[in-house]
Amino acid sequence: METVSENRCFGGVQGVYRHASDATGGQMTFGLFLPQEASAGPVPVLWYLSGLTCTHENAMTKAGAQAWAAQAGIALVFPDTSPRGDGVADDDAYDLGQGAGFYVDATEAPWAPHFKMWTYLTKDLPDLLFTDFALDPERQTITGHSMGGHGALTLAMHHPDRFRSVSAFAPIANPTQSDWGRKQLGAYLGADEALWAPHDATLLMRDRGYNGPMLIDQGTEDNFLDLLKPEALAEAIAARRQPAEFRMQAGYDHSYFFISSFMEDHVAFHAEALAR
Amino acid sequence: METVSENRCFGGVQGVYRHASDATGGQMTFGLFLPQEASAGPVPVLWYLSGLTCTHENAMTKAGAQAWAAQAGIALVFPDTSPRGDGVADDDAYDLGQGAGFYVDATEAPWAPHFKMWTYLTKDLPDLLFTDFALDPERQTITGHSMGGHGALTLAMHHPDRFRSVSAFAPIANPTQSDWGRKQLGAYLGADEALWAPHDATLLMRDRGYNGPMLIDQGTEDNFLDLLKPEALAEAIAARRQPAEFRMQAGYDHSYFFISSFMEDHVAFHAEALAR
Repeated sequence: METVSENRCFGGVQGVYRHASDATGGQMTFGLFLPQEASAGPVPVLWYLSGLTCTHENAMTKAGAQAWAAQAGIALVFPDTSPRGDGVADDDAYDLGQGAGFYVDATEAPWAPHFKMWTYLTKDLPDLLFTDFALDPERQTITGHSMGGHGALTLAMHHPDRFRSVSAFAPIANPTQSDWGRKQLGAYLGADEALWAPHDATLLMRDRGYNGPMLIDQGTEDNFLDLLKPEALAEAIAARRQPAEFRMQAGYDHSYFFISSFMEDHVAFHAEALAR
Repeated sequence: METVSENRCFGGVQGVYRHASDATGGQMTFGLFLPQEASAGPVPVLWYLSGLTCTHENAMTKAGAQAWAAQAGIALVFPDTSPRGDGVADDDAYDLGQGAGFYVDATEAPWAPHFKMWTYLTKDLPDLLFTDFALDPERQTITGHSMGGHGALTLAMHHPDRFRSVSAFAPIANPTQSDWGRKQLGAYLGADEALWAPHDATLLMRDRGYNGPMLIDQGTEDNFLDLLKPEALAEAIAARRQPAEFRMQAGYDHSYFFISSFMEDHVAFHAEALAR
């Protein structure tokens, strides 16, 4: 593992690190905020998964999460959104290929050899994080934005024993029924839509729900509401009687100004779940 | 004036606007955060001046100031750091020309026609802000980072009746004795160093001080300490018996991770001065 940078931040350290991943077959970069408490022993972790076009860096610099994480003594992990590099397949569209991994393990050409973000996030990166840093694997939570909200919700519903709580900002809530989803799931997983279902938060909610607290924020002035389909997930949550808080936030859009406005609430929500 | 963008943010609005400036003879862009309270009437203002290479955008997206400004009901103004555009002189160096206006009125070629940031910030931009937005000219405060810390300190010391308090993050504290200063003041103002003195915070502190509260934060691990010269300003403050808080912050560098870590303190400091 290589240290790209480390900056003192809210009494802790905001680091950026690079490491080789077996899953993606290449170098991956991630951000990690360690609060001051990590110098005394393992601290809990909040994963933050980013949206389309993002790298590890966007949320790390613009979401304002470190202030609240430092207050709560929680670490923040900011993974990249896809494998990258010259040998890695890509597409001219912003919503496919590099920067758009969709948090799945691709099976189809040309994506299959490298686009294994599901395995990267559930195996390679945790293996490294919980070995090399003072992080407690028994106290993990997860959140994300847009494509990353989709990732957070699907990862949490598949791994409720791993993630004690889940939240999302404007998640892609029903990708099997959206142009943010059908295109990518088809490209990465092939034409059989039965293979897409495990990566759709609304379908997972109908099928299994989530054994833990859930918080979702969605702006009413989001430009992408037709693609995000919050109504599908809201209906599924209510129909299942899933304990959850689903908030439509008046006037907010899809930007980091929306995310930062409610980050305090999300960190506090996860801190409460971690304290149980 | 043209609205470039407006995003809901912490219950208020983070806007970006473009307007014609007589001082700089061209179009200027600035960011403005208006808290919710501005819909009911004029609110106080905290000016944030940015450092070398920055535009209006850096602090607006990375400093995390809106959270605290919203809490205190204070507006934030994020001006650009220089005139820009095809007809505006520039230099290959990052620290001269566009993005490096140094908050002075240039008198020398090729800079003189456009590089009038002092007048832009003391006349053109206030004229527009206090006419077109719900901002209270009687309740202004100012801060800044690096070159912007230099700007904030020099503007405040020249206009103590306008700015009720001043703060700075890692300011260029003694530019007449630094390579961050001698080069630019020479280029913009000419060889007569007597004309540079009004734009040196340390010399102004020795000469006149500041009639109001002052807060300065400086990281001990800042890569640019030799250029910033905090020791000169600290000595001048103490020698003058100037009421001020000068904090050397252990482990912090020159980045926005440093700024965001102490932004809450700075906004609270200005809010207290505004409440008097």
